[in-house]
Amino acid sequence: MSLIVTGTIGIDTVETPSARRERVLGGSAAYFAAAAAPFTPVRVVGVVGGDWPAEHRAILEAVRGADLRGLETRAQGQTFAWGGKYLENLNVRETLFTDLGVVGEAPPMVPSVFADSSFVFLGNTHPSVQRGLLTQLPKRKLAIADTMDLWINIAHDELMKLLAEVDGLVLNDSETCLLTGVRNAVTAGERILGYGPRFVVVKKGEHGAVLVHRDGVAAVPAFPATEEMVIDPTGAGDSFAGGMMGHITREGLTPGASEFAILQDALTWGTVMASFTIGGFSLEGLRAATPDAIAQRHARFRAAARIA
Amino acid sequence: MSLIVTGTIGIDTVETPSARRERVLGGSAAYFAAAAAPFTPVRVVGVVGGDWPAEHRAILEAVRGADLRGLETRAQGQTFAWGGKYLENLNVRETLFTDLGVVGEAPPMVPSVFADSSFVFLGNTHPSVQRGLLTQLPKRKLAIADTMDLWINIAHDELMKLLAEVDGLVLNDSETCLLTGVRNAVTAGERILGYGPRFVVVKKGEHGAVLVHRDGVAAVPAFPATEEMVIDPTGAGDSFAGGMMGHITREGLTPGASEFAILQDALTWGTVMASFTIGGFSLEGLRAATPDAIAQRHARFRAAARIA
Repeated sequence: MSLIVTGTIGIDTVETPSARRERVLGGSAAYFAAAAAPFTPVRVVGVVGGDWPAEHRAILEAVRGADLRGLETRAQGQTFAWGGKYLENLNVRETLFTDLGVVGEAPPMVPSVFADSSFVFLGNTHPSVQRGLLTQLPKRKLAIADTMDLWINIAHDELMKLLAEVDGLVLNDSETCLLTGVRNAVTAGERILGYGPRFVVVKKGEHGAVLVHRDGVAAVPAFPATEEMVIDPTGAGDSFAGGMMGHITREGLTPGASEFAILQDALTWGTVMASFTIGGFSLEGLRAATPDAIAQRHARFRAAARIA
Repeated sequence: MSLIVTGTIGIDTVETPSARRERVLGGSAAYFAAAAAPFTPVRVVGVVGGDWPAEHRAILEAVRGADLRGLETRAQGQTFAWGGKYLENLNVRETLFTDLGVVGEAPPMVPSVFADSSFVFLGNTHPSVQRGLLTQLPKRKLAIADTMDLWINIAHDELMKLLAEVDGLVLNDSETCLLTGVRNAVTAGERILGYGPRFVVVKKGEHGAVLVHRDGVAAVPAFPATEEMVIDPTGAGDSFAGGMMGHITREGLTPGASEFAILQDALTWGTVMASFTIGGFSLEGLRAATPDAIAQRHARFRAAARIA
């Protein structure tokens, strides 16, 4: 069973109330891959420019299990760059700049060696690009898409077409509300099931996540992190998706009776991986996520969130 | 083991986006008692005025297990009355009026037949009144207090004295932040432990609750209710506390090794009872909470929130 992620590889500049880091490795595919890799090998499809720092490549190459053969370099182009600032104890984020660079050009292709991928995560980008990537993955068993407010607003029809073609959707609570007009996460999720997917995962950041599946509803709190444990929330959502898909791929999910149970467990692994990501800038927090550390963090989470 | 609650019995007028109910039974002690009673007998200490409707008394008397011998009637006084309006899909509450009536006069006394109570819940009122009630309960094994922003702002020193005398504190997330200056619920809870209590329960409404105890941290999501399940959130927090204390009393909590585990389970029962309360105005939602319905709702919650 093989997992593939399509998404951005970016150069992030992040400011928190207590620190600032310039031009560090970021992007949805980078966080996703680093969070999924402890569970299963992960194929990365993305595009960078000629300016992509050699040290960023080295960091990503050091992620054991990440297959970068789908990472295209366009020597004449600029790498996607994002700048953000966190306010009010890290709970409000302001985007300072977004330079699309090569991400605004033709999308990368799925290399032929990745064409047999079974588990597909379509990172957030224009839904017509996501649909184009999907057609290049004819052997897929399960495809989950991420999206954002921008596409809900300016590419609604294309997004609805995408939703008819994927098995699951992952998005945050404000996006869920924007897409459906319903603020209640469960009811909004049920409405999205009517658009096509078999399940929706609503990410609520520090408040956890809700799974709305054709076969039931599940809810998890976030990892009960102390203030000291939260250095930089950037990439937490992508890492959540990476841990989730990593677990699903490891389990070899087949649609049917056990899908809901595997997805419910996957929420927990996503929560655990996100809890590592917030512990540092860029992929630094995830660097601590050795198999032992992941197992320990999972045991801590299970102890804190167990229901007798 | 006997449970006692001190708090308000009120006449509520509530407006939601879809309905309005005038002069219905409300108040923290009413919700608490109705939510705790399925678990254990509950003694009620409160005060009403001569205007208290006979039908409100009949509703409370019909709560099997609620002992109203501590409910004082002051014929010349007015019953506490509160009016509130919910906006934005029930997530924002505006208080329209608060007429303290008899609640603004001398506090009720604990009747001598209740003086041997073991488990004490001090509903939200002035912390010096809460302290006065506590001195009338010398046989207590465990006392938990609720509070609110008003007392944090205008009676801070008295509140700190109260915190040195109780075992636990229950409050919502914005109050936790106001009391400690810390927005992170876990770190704020840890700070409150430094003020005296052995544990703190931070209620986050639709986002669940966090327990910060000397022996560990626990987190539960809220019951994943659909939009249709939420009629009126009034009293959800008091019902959460009632279900929680009902379970604790039923288990006969003794301070020591198992306290954390019993409190963690108590969060779940609190969540279940709150999920009934939001299903109707006044105590109407809780009327559906028969032992069978509670067991079924708990099983549903456990299935939705289980951690493998």
